[in-house]
Amino acid sequence: MRLAVLGVGLIGGSIGLATRSRAGAHVVGYDPAERAIAAALELGAIDEAAVSIAEAVRDTEAVFVATPVGALAQTVQAALAAAGPDCVVSDVGSTKRAIVAAVDDRRFIGGHPLAGAESAGVEHARADLFDAAAWYLTPAPDPSRPLLDRLEGVIGTLGACPVVVDAPTHDRLMARLSHLPHVFANLLVNEAARSLERERRGLTQGLLGAGPSLRDATRVAGANSAIWVDIYLSNGDALIEAIDEAIEALGEVRAALSRSDREALSAWNECARAARRQMTGAAPTPDS
Amino acid sequence: MRLAVLGVGLIGGSIGLATRSRAGAHVVGYDPAERAIAAALELGAIDEAAVSIAEAVRDTEAVFVATPVGALAQTVQAALAAAGPDCVVSDVGSTKRAIVAAVDDRRFIGGHPLAGAESAGVEHARADLFDAAAWYLTPAPDPSRPLLDRLEGVIGTLGACPVVVDAPTHDRLMARLSHLPHVFANLLVNEAARSLERERRGLTQGLLGAGPSLRDATRVAGANSAIWVDIYLSNGDALIEAIDEAIEALGEVRAALSRSDREALSAWNECARAARRQMTGAAPTPDS
Repeated sequence: MRLAVLGVGLIGGSIGLATRSRAGAHVVGYDPAERAIAAALELGAIDEAAVSIAEAVRDTEAVFVATPVGALAQTVQAALAAAGPDCVVSDVGSTKRAIVAAVDDRRFIGGHPLAGAESAGVEHARADLFDAAAWYLTPAPDPSRPLLDRLEGVIGTLGACPVVVDAPTHDRLMARLSHLPHVFANLLVNEAARSLERERRGLTQGLLGAGPSLRDATRVAGANSAIWVDIYLSNGDALIEAIDEAIEALGEVRAALSRSDREALSAWNECARAARRQMTGAAPTPDS
Repeated sequence: MRLAVLGVGLIGGSIGLATRSRAGAHVVGYDPAERAIAAALELGAIDEAAVSIAEAVRDTEAVFVATPVGALAQTVQAALAAAGPDCVVSDVGSTKRAIVAAVDDRRFIGGHPLAGAESAGVEHARADLFDAAAWYLTPAPDPSRPLLDRLEGVIGTLGACPVVVDAPTHDRLMARLSHLPHVFANLLVNEAARSLERERRGLTQGLLGAGPSLRDATRVAGANSAIWVDIYLSNGDALIEAIDEAIEALGEVRAALSRSDREALSAWNECARAARRQMTGAAPTPDS
């Protein structure tokens, strides 16, 4: 199988590493940053470097567009213009309505792998980055079935589990499953910093003074602004809905606290316990 | 050194294990649950079992009260009634204003170790549970200096770092550093469950569909209701303040989103990034 990866960073590089090592794919890489291309070749994330998008996608069966979000749509369009009639083109953007609406081509199937990583850049790429991760696919209403099958096959090779949903559903889910958690992480770390400051204990006391729950809850706080502000803005309406629900829920907890309503707090907490157990199969690990 | 541990669960058992193995302390345990006492003896968490609080604290230099929160105050009072004039009595309750106000005795110094653990019960006790953890101490305005020194010494032996603050400051800090993170975790898991349900994907898809950020952000969701509802209620006023601040901050994020204010979102995110870096020394690890 011959694949192209357009944009050779953490995600693109990991796609290359995994398809090469696990499926013996021949991977052509393209990236306007020469340093990224050199590193990708050195790491074995790609077999060869192309000097243009058109050269990269020539004769490939699948193309992954993994550029920064600002360049996604135009790179997808350029790939589709140069790709053959039997080539599937996908992307890895974190929100899906805009790109699915912008691209009118049955060869395009939007995608979004849900994989966390410590650091950006191809030098942190790993063949196992997607193992057991959800990889959302958001085909248009009438996708090419054989191309969708092929894309699901490649994603399976990457170790990920394809989850096919329409783009609006994906964006609503991500608002609650990913974007709101990032907003909450920012809020918590800002609140913690403010309160430590207010108590004049200073931020250097922060790590010492905070329990493991805060550390884990804020793992994603202050994620790369260049990426995350785009994500927030591109899903602004869905995220606003999620925030409104959260504000309402906080109001309910507040009301239960202000009337010392043991029963309501207990029911709310048990509801969270049941949901988490069903979602993860694991019991919670609270601070003492 | 001779110590008493009143209430031999996860925390009490871990105190016993650590002081015995690291300082050669002689530890007397008391717990109304015979099964807990038998397990503690079996595990080596205590040297001997007492049949009453009075017997347990006799001739000890330090007493740790680690009962469920409902029994803390009366157990502390019983310990003080039986303890010698040179014995320091402390507790491990998660909020501190109520007990510090209720106990008028210079031998009592409130305490709160910030250590997370998977499961309650002495069978999960570990000698290293408190390694590098903050252990808040909340002495009354005029504590016995030698007894405070001794308590700090024992806590150092346990591997923890004593942090001395007044009880109101402790409770305000915990509202932001621990209780609000727990509230947010509950909210997130409930929101996620609701949205998965609404999209008819069902909770069994939850683990698959969610990224690592949600998993980590909800690690403490649905923490033991028997413990956590008491914690929330005992710190209700401070937690309400923290929730109000959070609602205000969510409103600001919402406003920035609704006017697509890239600059404000970026500044907010960079503020969280700086705070987290100062608090933990680590970069965030966002979902892709």
